[in-house]
Amino acid sequence: MKWVRYQADDGVFYGVLGGDIITKTIGSPFTDFESTNQQISLDEVRILPPVIPKTFYAAGINYKKHVLEAAALLNREPNLPEKADIGYRANNAIIGHGDAIVIPKDATDKIHYEAELVVVIGKTAKNVPIQDSLQYVLGYTVGNDVSERTWQASDRTLWRAKNTDTFKPMGPWIETEADLNQMVTTVRLNGEETISFQTNDMIFGVEKYISEITKYLTLHPGDVIWMGTDGTSKNMKNGDVCEIEISGVGTLSNPVTRAI
Amino acid sequence: MKWVRYQADDGVFYGVLGGDIITKTIGSPFTDFESTNQQISLDEVRILPPVIPKTFYAAGINYKKHVLEAAALLNREPNLPEKADIGYRANNAIIGHGDAIVIPKDATDKIHYEAELVVVIGKTAKNVPIQDSLQYVLGYTVGNDVSERTWQASDRTLWRAKNTDTFKPMGPWIETEADLNQMVTTVRLNGEETISFQTNDMIFGVEKYISEITKYLTLHPGDVIWMGTDGTSKNMKNGDVCEIEISGVGTLSNPVTRAI
Repeated sequence: MKWVRYQADDGVFYGVLGGDIITKTIGSPFTDFESTNQQISLDEVRILPPVIPKTFYAAGINYKKHVLEAAALLNREPNLPEKADIGYRANNAIIGHGDAIVIPKDATDKIHYEAELVVVIGKTAKNVPIQDSLQYVLGYTVGNDVSERTWQASDRTLWRAKNTDTFKPMGPWIETEADLNQMVTTVRLNGEETISFQTNDMIFGVEKYISEITKYLTLHPGDVIWMGTDGTSKNMKNGDVCEIEISGVGTLSNPVTRAI
Repeated sequence: MKWVRYQADDGVFYGVLGGDIITKTIGSPFTDFESTNQQISLDEVRILPPVIPKTFYAAGINYKKHVLEAAALLNREPNLPEKADIGYRANNAIIGHGDAIVIPKDATDKIHYEAELVVVIGKTAKNVPIQDSLQYVLGYTVGNDVSERTWQASDRTLWRAKNTDTFKPMGPWIETEADLNQMVTTVRLNGEETISFQTNDMIFGVEKYISEITKYLTLHPGDVIWMGTDGTSKNMKNGDVCEIEISGVGTLSNPVTRAI
């Protein structure tokens, strides 16, 4: 089942997508909802980010090849994580499918995409045994962890390197029936494939992260966990279109502009 | 003016506090609100955290003495920040005035308080000139950036060191008329004063941070910026009460328990 959040003429709603038709609901998949018999075509609405989380979690480094390649680029020793320590991103930066990634005027050319599986939490979770973890997942969506690599190296935190407004595209919807082991993540820049990897080839998987996080932190309905990326990005520039597909989940596409 | 958020028998409301009496409003100080003529005594309600932010910002290191003392304790060179790079904390950890700080079973004894001024944003802010910054501030409250120092040193991120559930007490209310230069921050552990410092003796002040953040990030109504702390904490343990007063703003008090 695909949950889509959208702006229509009469307000913002969650709906269930079948083919190109949205069936409107009242409420949300995180609380209570009621189906309606009102339908609208996907191309008549604006797709919104599928959720604005209470807390925005991000695994950061979670694929071995990405760590080794990033270390080589920066001329540093690779530093593989030893524990599933979670990190954070910021809500101000979230945009939806189709919205523009805006590169600030004073950013360098090193504007990179990072194609990530996004886990959407459906139920309040604390002290969850690893084997029960997936019961707390409502579904999956796609994230692009856009990063300014020069700032990432120069600043004390990731604040503007990863959380500049528009740097966190997420969408297009939440797929509730995807199989982690069947997913392949593919990035296309201006239609040309640049990266493709097995989505679940993570250092610490979804179940491990949920189990570790909830030893200390409560996960709430609507919280998201971005699971990290593999491969090495090309630079994105004004006029580009960056498309990330996770098979069985959906395709997130965003144009890129540079502020003038 | 003091904005207090509270749980009463008939729901959750914002009210305006005068003496010990809350005058209920409909709405919130961040959107639209309407005054009512309904009043309730402060001791008849449960005080809630004054806001759950869209994004939870934290300056982290922002007082010179704290940096020097922390470096000496860890036997490291002091590392004073060169730029106003903002950091983050997580909403799951927020509790209100009077709520218990719960130390996890497996935490060490190094559970520290950090007394912080909290800036509460009142209006959407982007590209704000430094001299206009305070116009975007609704008011101030008090925060306790509770930290498990062993985890802070061992983990790749601050996730459980600073964001364990209950580790972010905030309150008791938002004071809209306080003067930064008149504030003194005082910590009392079990009634005994342990730290006192000039609140505004920061490396980078409130105006500087708002101006720097909004070059890249939009601040939204209800966002909070925790401004860092001075001094060195004692360990907090089961049965303690930690009280943080910022003169002209209010006093945040929380009991401490250890999970068994």
